[in-house]
Amino acid sequence: MASVTLYTTGTFNGLKAVYALNELKAHYGFEFAIKNVDIFSKKEQQEEWFQKINPNGKIPALVDHKHGDFAIFESAAILLWLAEHYDPENILFPSAAESKERSEVTQWLFWQMSGLGPIQGQANLFINFAPEKIPFAINRYTDEVLRLYGVLEKHLSDGRQFVAAGRYTIADLNLFGHIGAHNLQVGITLEKFPLVDAWLHRIAQKQAVLDAFEQFGNKLIQNDFRKPAPVPAPSA
Amino acid sequence: MASVTLYTTGTFNGLKAVYALNELKAHYGFEFAIKNVDIFSKKEQQEEWFQKINPNGKIPALVDHKHGDFAIFESAAILLWLAEHYDPENILFPSAAESKERSEVTQWLFWQMSGLGPIQGQANLFINFAPEKIPFAINRYTDEVLRLYGVLEKHLSDGRQFVAAGRYTIADLNLFGHIGAHNLQVGITLEKFPLVDAWLHRIAQKQAVLDAFEQFGNKLIQNDFRKPAPVPAPSA
Repeated sequence: MASVTLYTTGTFNGLKAVYALNELKAHYGFEFAIKNVDIFSKKEQQEEWFQKINPNGKIPALVDHKHGDFAIFESAAILLWLAEHYDPENILFPSAAESKERSEVTQWLFWQMSGLGPIQGQANLFINFAPEKIPFAINRYTDEVLRLYGVLEKHLSDGRQFVAAGRYTIADLNLFGHIGAHNLQVGITLEKFPLVDAWLHRIAQKQAVLDAFEQFGNKLIQNDFRKPAPVPAPSA
Repeated sequence: MASVTLYTTGTFNGLKAVYALNELKAHYGFEFAIKNVDIFSKKEQQEEWFQKINPNGKIPALVDHKHGDFAIFESAAILLWLAEHYDPENILFPSAAESKERSEVTQWLFWQMSGLGPIQGQANLFINFAPEKIPFAINRYTDEVLRLYGVLEKHLSDGRQFVAAGRYTIADLNLFGHIGAHNLQVGITLEKFPLVDAWLHRIAQKQAVLDAFEQFGNKLIQNDFRKPAPVPAPSA
């Protein structure tokens, strides 16, 4: 019997909670269900049944059956809910007793949610989807994305292996997909950000992440940083 | 002796923590210091001393002297820190025991931080600051701002007086300044959002907010929704 149902799909924001649920399952045997929401062709996120779960009409959303079908929206709020309710050993989020480490996690959650996520999203819009090329917008958002990657690179330069609290947490899972999409969304490489690159591959090797890639199949090919380098065709 | 020092200035993001500090002072006698950061002419937020406090180089940032000068960045992470450490009676943020109410607050914190704040910021950029008028961008961001205000209006339509948890919390303080800037930043009125308008004026009457307006003087005139309606000149 699933404790929670996650309504999501295989986007960067949509997968964060899947990684966390996979971690909770592996560690505690936590049981959950996933319902795929077709946000592209059917636009199910705009339907009334979904908006009752999330008034903002976006994936992901979580319904907690152990708490009277309480509904939670916003990807990072879902991560906090899961951590506060289903992670008694604090494998993904420091306890209140470790208040500085806990705050480091929330600081980097908000940094992704308010900064890197939205800004990279606007870069993606103007680079890949706008009906015309608008140099002012493309340059502005690309520059800000590069600044933000630089902030993360510098942050990792003191030997940190993970983003916050000195260990693997929901701050890593919250940031992983967006950083993974650097090439797809912004057309940049990580050449100038070697520590970010190393961190990215560190998180990409987590079993919970690999499992999410399997669960969502081809949709995850978006995470093209994980594709092996193309093998040159043998010369004829 | 101040327990914390807030580095900030009188912007919408910059004032959130001032409101919360004023509440803690009024209720508990909490002592704090504020250092104004000149982010416009001197760009002090880019200086090395400031970046040691906030690696992301933006206001606000908080230094907690009672916790070994621990530094916290991201406005909503500062609100959570203050609430978790200096609000033992939970006047601004529900306790862990009230887990649903607590989650409602974090959900609406993230909704503002990842959605309304950044999107309204981009609308402001393209409407008021871009070197040329770009209809695609102006229309896209204005439409999304209006959608988000519509989400809040609908959310308030069941009789809610406050954004989350059935009472006044940091979710209100986190959202207040941005909604107050609707006219200045996006050039819209709240005519179609009467419940949002009523909520806005409800928060604007809080003493902690009024005090912040006094503390930051003319900078707060940005919050032009608070200006009294102009008095018509007597006919000559």
